[in-house]
Amino acid sequence: MIVAEFSVFPMGAGTSGGRYVRAVHDMLKKAGIEFIAGPMSTAIEAETFEEICMIIERANKVLSDMEVQRIITSVKIDYRLDKDISMQSKLDACR
Amino acid sequence: MIVAEFSVFPMGAGTSGGRYVRAVHDMLKKAGIEFIAGPMSTAIEAETFEEICMIIERANKVLSDMEVQRIITSVKIDYRLDKDISMQSKLDACR
Amino acid sequence: MIVAEFSVFPMGAGTSGGRYVRAVHDMLKKAGIEFIAGPMSTAIEAETFEEICMIIERANKVLSDMEVQRIITSVKIDYRLDKDISMQSKLDACR
Amino acid sequence: MIVAEFSVFPMGAGTSGGRYVRAVHDMLKKAGIEFIAGPMSTAIEAETFEEICMIIERANKVLSDMEVQRIITSVKIDYRLDKDISMQSKLDACR
Repeated sequence: MIVAEFSVFPMGAGTSGGRYVRAVHDMLKKAGIEFIAGPMSTAIEAETFEEICMIIERANKVLSDMEVQRIITSVKIDYRLDKDISMQSKLDACR
Repeated sequence: MIVAEFSVFPMGAGTSGGRYVRAVHDMLKKAGIEFIAGPMSTAIEAETFEEICMIIERANKVLSDMEVQRIITSVKIDYRLDKDISMQSKLDACR
Repeated sequence: MIVAEFSVFPMGAGTSGGRYVRAVHDMLKKAGIEFIAGPMSTAIEAETFEEICMIIERANKVLSDMEVQRIITSVKIDYRLDKDISMQSKLDACR
Repeated sequence: MIVAEFSVFPMGAGTSGGRYVRAVHDMLKKAGIEFIAGPMSTAIEAETFEEICMIIERANKVLSDMEVQRIITSVKIDYRLDKDISMQSKLDACR
């Protein structure tokens, strides 16, 4: 699997982003997409780049539906061909 | 347009990444995709998230075709709904 | 407090980074620095930018001491002046 | 040298960041710090982590002096021990 981590930053929508992040997490839950929420970003996993991209696009859609006029998204993707990885395997590897 | 910036880091492929970045830039040129190369990342622009994603995926494909077994990609996306932006308009705004 | 998230990527040191991340976490534990490990990055908090920077530098030192010849570090910093934040308050805000 | 790239995102300060980025670039010029401005980020170089950190902190200070109440900073650092690098050498390596 491909493991990724992303953060969305609503610009021009006040200093607090909590309700936007909650809305993104709600979207992920409703879509049945597993994620791990951290203090600064949300980790996800998917079989393909398309799925990762679709999640990022949907997260942006959640914010634009909440009237956010500009969204900065930061994404980090771990694409590994030599062995299968998952969010859990990556967490385990650090222990 | 959506403006983005990305970097690909080949893991387990030596310390030098120049030839991989050159290969990614060659792919962009051949595909007719405009970009601005910086010391640490490459800026691109596209009409849709799908296009941004396709470019990121293709960049990963360039590296995996060069036998890189693990690729870390860092992406930053600026999605703005209140006015049209481009790489050039963003550069101009800082001057 | 300032909340930050960072990842270190050893270049030219094989495809697996687990032992390097473990070494960074060991350093954090020994130094009494609280952190939250995620699948793709490690969250930290500090009173000042200097402390955040010192942690990043030390993490790089851990890897260079392990003979890593090139280290890419990705950092995201949340510096907020309108209210006090912490890793925990940020996690709570998303729930 | 250590080469880095950073972006500052003012939260709760409208959707346009141009004047903030210009102010950061003015600070860099006045301080005699070389930089390369890109559409999404600013590249810098320094001899030490302390210098990189000082620049990041100063950029945050520029924004807080402009009444920005929350600042997200994204930083990527390239620390290489096997050979000397600079912003220019990294640009050249991609050509």
